[in-house]
Amino acid sequence: MNTMVLTKTADDISSMRVRGAGRIARTAAAALQEYGASLDSKTLAEFITEMEKAAVILRGTRPTAVSLPNAIRHVMRGVQKAETLVEAQRALHDCATEFIRDSHAAVDKIADITARQIPDDAVIMTHCNSQAAIAGIIRAHEQGKVREVYATEVRPRNQGYLTIQALSDAGISVSFIVDSAARMFMPKVDQVITGTDAIMSNGAVVNKIGTSQIALCAHEARKPFIVAAETYKFAPRTILGERIPIEWRSAEEVIGSERVLPANVTVKNPAFDVTPPAYVDLIVTEIGAFAPSYAPFIIRDHLGWNISEFQKDYTYSYY
Amino acid sequence: MNTMVLTKTADDISSMRVRGAGRIARTAAAALQEYGASLDSKTLAEFITEMEKAAVILRGTRPTAVSLPNAIRHVMRGVQKAETLVEAQRALHDCATEFIRDSHAAVDKIADITARQIPDDAVIMTHCNSQAAIAGIIRAHEQGKVREVYATEVRPRNQGYLTIQALSDAGISVSFIVDSAARMFMPKVDQVITGTDAIMSNGAVVNKIGTSQIALCAHEARKPFIVAAETYKFAPRTILGERIPIEWRSAEEVIGSERVLPANVTVKNPAFDVTPPAYVDLIVTEIGAFAPSYAPFIIRDHLGWNISEFQKDYTYSYY
Amino acid sequence: MNTMVLTKTADDISSMRVRGAGRIARTAAAALQEYGASLDSKTLAEFITEMEKAAVILRGTRPTAVSLPNAIRHVMRGVQKAETLVEAQRALHDCATEFIRDSHAAVDKIADITARQIPDDAVIMTHCNSQAAIAGIIRAHEQGKVREVYATEVRPRNQGYLTIQALSDAGISVSFIVDSAARMFMPKVDQVITGTDAIMSNGAVVNKIGTSQIALCAHEARKPFIVAAETYKFAPRTILGERIPIEWRSAEEVIGSERVLPANVTVKNPAFDVTPPAYVDLIVTEIGAFAPSYAPFIIRDHLGWNISEFQKDYTYSYY
Amino acid sequence: MNTMVLTKTADDISSMRVRGAGRIARTAAAALQEYGASLDSKTLAEFITEMEKAAVILRGTRPTAVSLPNAIRHVMRGVQKAETLVEAQRALHDCATEFIRDSHAAVDKIADITARQIPDDAVIMTHCNSQAAIAGIIRAHEQGKVREVYATEVRPRNQGYLTIQALSDAGISVSFIVDSAARMFMPKVDQVITGTDAIMSNGAVVNKIGTSQIALCAHEARKPFIVAAETYKFAPRTILGERIPIEWRSAEEVIGSERVLPANVTVKNPAFDVTPPAYVDLIVTEIGAFAPSYAPFIIRDHLGWNISEFQKDYTYSYY
Amino acid sequence: MNTMVLTKTADDISSMRVRGAGRIARTAAAALQEYGASLDSKTLAEFITEMEKAAVILRGTRPTAVSLPNAIRHVMRGVQKAETLVEAQRALHDCATEFIRDSHAAVDKIADITARQIPDDAVIMTHCNSQAAIAGIIRAHEQGKVREVYATEVRPRNQGYLTIQALSDAGISVSFIVDSAARMFMPKVDQVITGTDAIMSNGAVVNKIGTSQIALCAHEARKPFIVAAETYKFAPRTILGERIPIEWRSAEEVIGSERVLPANVTVKNPAFDVTPPAYVDLIVTEIGAFAPSYAPFIIRDHLGWNISEFQKDYTYSYY
Amino acid sequence: MNTMVLTKTADDISSMRVRGAGRIARTAAAALQEYGASLDSKTLAEFITEMEKAAVILRGTRPTAVSLPNAIRHVMRGVQKAETLVEAQRALHDCATEFIRDSHAAVDKIADITARQIPDDAVIMTHCNSQAAIAGIIRAHEQGKVREVYATEVRPRNQGYLTIQALSDAGISVSFIVDSAARMFMPKVDQVITGTDAIMSNGAVVNKIGTSQIALCAHEARKPFIVAAETYKFAPRTILGERIPIEWRSAEEVIGSERVLPANVTVKNPAFDVTPPAYVDLIVTEIGAFAPSYAPFIIRDHLGWNISEFQKDYTYSYY
Repeated sequence: MNTMVLTKTADDISSMRVRGAGRIARTAAAALQEYGASLDSKTLAEFITEMEKAAVILRGTRPTAVSLPNAIRHVMRGVQKAETLVEAQRALHDCATEFIRDSHAAVDKIADITARQIPDDAVIMTHCNSQAAIAGIIRAHEQGKVREVYATEVRPRNQGYLTIQALSDAGISVSFIVDSAARMFMPKVDQVITGTDAIMSNGAVVNKIGTSQIALCAHEARKPFIVAAETYKFAPRTILGERIPIEWRSAEEVIGSERVLPANVTVKNPAFDVTPPAYVDLIVTEIGAFAPSYAPFIIRDHLGWNISEFQKDYTYSYY
Repeated sequence: MNTMVLTKTADDISSMRVRGAGRIARTAAAALQEYGASLDSKTLAEFITEMEKAAVILRGTRPTAVSLPNAIRHVMRGVQKAETLVEAQRALHDCATEFIRDSHAAVDKIADITARQIPDDAVIMTHCNSQAAIAGIIRAHEQGKVREVYATEVRPRNQGYLTIQALSDAGISVSFIVDSAARMFMPKVDQVITGTDAIMSNGAVVNKIGTSQIALCAHEARKPFIVAAETYKFAPRTILGERIPIEWRSAEEVIGSERVLPANVTVKNPAFDVTPPAYVDLIVTEIGAFAPSYAPFIIRDHLGWNISEFQKDYTYSYY
Repeated sequence: MNTMVLTKTADDISSMRVRGAGRIARTAAAALQEYGASLDSKTLAEFITEMEKAAVILRGTRPTAVSLPNAIRHVMRGVQKAETLVEAQRALHDCATEFIRDSHAAVDKIADITARQIPDDAVIMTHCNSQAAIAGIIRAHEQGKVREVYATEVRPRNQGYLTIQALSDAGISVSFIVDSAARMFMPKVDQVITGTDAIMSNGAVVNKIGTSQIALCAHEARKPFIVAAETYKFAPRTILGERIPIEWRSAEEVIGSERVLPANVTVKNPAFDVTPPAYVDLIVTEIGAFAPSYAPFIIRDHLGWNISEFQKDYTYSYY
Repeated sequence: MNTMVLTKTADDISSMRVRGAGRIARTAAAALQEYGASLDSKTLAEFITEMEKAAVILRGTRPTAVSLPNAIRHVMRGVQKAETLVEAQRALHDCATEFIRDSHAAVDKIADITARQIPDDAVIMTHCNSQAAIAGIIRAHEQGKVREVYATEVRPRNQGYLTIQALSDAGISVSFIVDSAARMFMPKVDQVITGTDAIMSNGAVVNKIGTSQIALCAHEARKPFIVAAETYKFAPRTILGERIPIEWRSAEEVIGSERVLPANVTVKNPAFDVTPPAYVDLIVTEIGAFAPSYAPFIIRDHLGWNISEFQKDYTYSYY
Repeated sequence: MNTMVLTKTADDISSMRVRGAGRIARTAAAALQEYGASLDSKTLAEFITEMEKAAVILRGTRPTAVSLPNAIRHVMRGVQKAETLVEAQRALHDCATEFIRDSHAAVDKIADITARQIPDDAVIMTHCNSQAAIAGIIRAHEQGKVREVYATEVRPRNQGYLTIQALSDAGISVSFIVDSAARMFMPKVDQVITGTDAIMSNGAVVNKIGTSQIALCAHEARKPFIVAAETYKFAPRTILGERIPIEWRSAEEVIGSERVLPANVTVKNPAFDVTPPAYVDLIVTEIGAFAPSYAPFIIRDHLGWNISEFQKDYTYSYY
Repeated sequence: MNTMVLTKTADDISSMRVRGAGRIARTAAAALQEYGASLDSKTLAEFITEMEKAAVILRGTRPTAVSLPNAIRHVMRGVQKAETLVEAQRALHDCATEFIRDSHAAVDKIADITARQIPDDAVIMTHCNSQAAIAGIIRAHEQGKVREVYATEVRPRNQGYLTIQALSDAGISVSFIVDSAARMFMPKVDQVITGTDAIMSNGAVVNKIGTSQIALCAHEARKPFIVAAETYKFAPRTILGERIPIEWRSAEEVIGSERVLPANVTVKNPAFDVTPPAYVDLIVTEIGAFAPSYAPFIIRDHLGWNISEFQKDYTYSYY
């Protein structure tokens, strides 16, 4: 068996070489697909056992982004229902392909819907580096509606540089600001648009650290705060009261590898924060734009939420 | 005449080698003192003319911090009232000495009053690197009342490193966080304490970029937001409707000297923002702790506010 | 073919001789019915083509009220599904009759439910001239529960005069106030009840200009703001991110036909504004009373929302 | 004695031929001056008696605007302190002249200070027709800072037409809107600037009906709400708990002289409302710009507030 | 026939010897079961008639808690659908057993889900004496997560003593406070958890007097306010606009039986108040944890809401 | 020496036989007066020493109410300035007499001013048992303006019974409610009026536990919250950052003397809480009615605040 693809993918995700909730999900789906294809299992049982081990490895790479377990569950569902080895192998291939294709299609539909929400001559603020949010802004730009985008630096990993590159490549005027300047420029902004790593059943949005602060500033200034989110960003198990764990990353990400901290000082480096639903005006998914109160219906109707299934508590369906 | 002290001081201030509103004020007062002592003016008129030129040079170094023109006005007041050259020279020396001494004493008194406001087992958040705020926290620590301090990174100049060093040296437990994490940790905090560069007549606080965002988060979570401010931080001319100009600094401060920005991207780098009085719970000065509504009385009773004088519009009394 | 009924109806609607979202919808349904009956089409295709032209004409009369395209879609649905000319003719007749009958029945049911929400000895404020809202108030009055109604003038078209006539005819005590006085009298009011022209998928209410201001005042004073809305007031395509266009009407409506505006002055005369869902306490429909968060379910379950259908983008199903 | 000037002035004020708190005050001062000059009193006592009668007549014309009793008190103060008839006659002349001159000067100073508060490329909203507010906007326009002004219709007396004429004459671009549209256009506005008829000791602003609603909308959208107010607009007796009576005017002002109201309908037509201090960002007077909390000091330091004097309860010092 | 069980149960409930919405519901279900078993009806019609009389008696005991009519409806549903006497008797027995069993199971599931929401080292406040809320707290305590619980006195019936006994028995540290002290201790609390007597279709929570005040304090301090509620606490008929009647109980409950009130004084003793959905963060039911906006779906999907049935207006299905 | 008067007074105050901030202050003044008169000191120094000891004893009886140290300081001021024994004895007598007389007069003036703030047909809520607040309500009742008063029970000491007796004696209609019912009845109330034990320099009001909760409810419902406060209720040393200690009283006050608490349960019984200035609309003193922002001026201008004096830190000038 060739576990290298697993190990490498797991390492790419945990080290953030592969980052962004959507890319992580697709990469994991592809890794499962490739790994499954490389297996020479003799029996269905053996195949399922190996695939579930693989699922556990991938799911453990990063705790917060729910796209990862949702992708894995989607891919594994076919495998688990299969009655023969051949059926399982085909299901694995098909489900993974389907997930990756739908994920790309979702971004495209979200871009369409988001662009409809953007008014003429719009000034938009974004935080971090969300494919879906950026796609929506670029779509609106292609329709001639975007005047300027404010993009934040996004400490400590500085994903803002990726965002300004993408917007620049699309020919959009960009103002680059430090994270602390979000409130100061809010009066000049018409809308804030971000992505998300996970959405809870009450509509709360888990996204890059700093998001809730910007959402609060938008709320204070009565500017719409819009979240672009593929449906696989919704976290089913939050309906059962589960809390989404927030990943804390290393001090080195903040202070660099050479600096030594003074005595008594520790770095606290949570990668995400939680924006309460009261500060979220609209969540744009590939199946429509909704208030946060719609979240449990996305989970039930589009992620196949089913309490009794959840209560079996599969290891790989963490959320 | 030896203008080197002026040139060097002006350069030190504008390049932020000397930074912090209090240090800037004292450095300018000392520079005027030293420069005046080096002059060999033959007449009072000549002396005053030279000193006013010097005042103009120093006042022009940084636009936002009102401590600078307040210090210069304090030092120059004696010179302008003098009737003989000797009197002017002595007044210059005495006023500068007095300003510097009072400035240090003010920090000490503010530390006393601030410490009284800090409850037992307190968790405090601070932003940027304010001498007065830190002095208050250390005073409370000496009284055994401080459990932990959250200090922010303070992009783009990273003054947070100065703050954690000072707190560490005093033996205080510190958590170091990126600016974006302020809202996430606010529920764990009992109070936020910062300094200020200028206070307007309506009690609004002009301080390091990011302050208003943190104050908003404190307000949202009902945590007291306390500002430590020597009385010379209040800006008299705001009573006449003047707005305090916000200094915008170079892109290089944000992106460093080596990185090249993509096309269409500009950096916006304001050094300060304005916290509205509704988010400020208490302003601690050396003469007492007040709600922001007390600001015009500090200006009138302690900075000698006098409309008719202001309307003469001396170059060096900008605010 | 006799297009006069179309032309006249279209003109009546755009000139506001026929006004009120419910009346507009019923008038359009009746006009389609009458027009269809007058056609001597030889084939089903010809009949459908003519009817679709008619639909486009009527739909274009006023942009904001979604009752119009909803009514047209309801009437046309049967025509489009028909397999023979006779079937189409009968479907046209039946669907139009049904729409008109259900529209009247809806007002009656809304009146019942609204009246249950009105407490004893109630003082109510209303804005503009909503059939459904007034019906609810009169129903409660018949139950002896209404002390007094505050009705606004409703500039620029002064629909308030229609409202006070209707309430007066029902024997209800009325206080007539200018639009600017809404906040002043809010403390004396128990509830605000209005109608609506369109409701968005997030529960936002598009209604006569001034409504959002009154809703804000009700929210400030913690008085329930209740919207009476037939289900055909919900705008399906807002789920796909469409924004509801706000109709701007002529300057003459505001300043009259004789006055000449001074140089440099223009009149801005939007006929509607948008009340955010956070200020809406209850939406009363003929199928129950709901919080604004229920809006997407009204659209899905009661207006037959179906994404794939919408994406075909029929000209006449604008929202 | 020639009481015609009194009668005519009183009638001009109560019928609103003379309107605006500043104009009313100056007209009353001039009427007292003229009336006093026409008297041929034989003794000081007789002169004072006549003048006090005149003061009572003028003060009774309109109940809300405090500028009227403040003007009368200013003019009468000299008369009451005089020890001879000649002294009283001269004091009357001088005090009235002084009041009128200072009132004009105050508008000019307020314009200066207000203009400093207006940012570049400003979009401003105003309500009703305040000399001081308009003067400030025109001053800023002369400095090239005004992009556009939104002016409301101001039902029921339509003072908006006076405002758009004045702004038009100054060459300023104006958008004219109905009162109900204020909230809809608030996001496009940078500041709201109005005048006032009276300011209470807690900083609450009594101004034209509709003002508090617009202030609420400005507060909601975080736009500064600025009040231009000569110091004689502050109401001293509110410190002793007096409430400012709100004038209710005739139904005819609202519905015109020809329309007949339906049965059960009455018109409620209050001319003013009260904006709470929490919605007022700045009050600009001729002696500086202050937060509403400064109000009692204006009264004490600039209107000569003196509890014991108030408690004597002179008829003409109503507030 | 033996009506004693009915009379006694009705009396136990109305006198609050049996109290708590869950216990009331189960007691009523058991009483119907027992009463039905004791009947010797000859025909199905006779049996149904007797049972409906019994239902009316029990439903009339306390007006507010919707668990009572929901329990009765559940038990009676089988009886009404039966086609033979035997079928009806069996249905009565089975439905009552099922209701009682499900009610106990619901508390257990709610405890599980609630415990997941409780963070480590939690300080929790509760009000009144809710079985479900207490079960959740104890479950979390068993998981080692509870530091301390604040329990209120709960005037006038002092149910707080029951609560502190239950928590004490479970070994939990408790602070007992008067109802007035809730706001003072709110900053020390992580979450508030209460039960409920009824939930309206808009998510408003009807619970013990004082609950809305505590919810407001939690909202002010940004502390989550969580309601533990079996699904039979949701009030179906509120969808049709019905208001939930609030029970007012005797003066004696407040002042005791011996004290005489002074002249002019009356006691107002409402037993419940209404907490608006904006102050409710989460409602935990046995089928998941939801935002208040989910309420109509609980009613529709889990209580079998059906408009046409409701409109028949059975006496015993009050809500 | 006869220390019995001291001992008895101290005991009366600490046991709450004498209660209410005003009564405490007057009782302490009288006790000092009586005690001083009973001394047979031979020298001024001896007299002062004895009096200061007495002051310390009295000041230590209850920590929160600032009226106590303010009264003592007022009485002792004359003693300390005296140059002879006779002068000191006379000063003691006169200052105590003056304090007691002024305290009574203050209540009377406060009643006048408060009554002006009460509108016609007013419904008022009050909490605890404040002489000044009740006097204002009765004054307004004598003017025919009071419809009804809501009075709370005021757990744990039930001072509400004193209040309803006083209001009943004055012939006022009273509704008596439990503390938890304040929010429920707030919509029926026009104003809330309470007294206070201490006011901080930022305008925060320290009063009976539960006050801040009621103030929050009034703020939520936009009902004015008015505090009746003699000037000696303001706490000077809060300007220097001192916090007012909150007295915690015994568990027995809450649970009575016979009940035994279960294991793990403790009673927390703070007697006061702090209402933030943002929830206080007006503070009525004997010298006028002010917004909370006026507090430092009461302290400075009417309590003779003087930083340098405070810094000497006299034992008896605790605040």
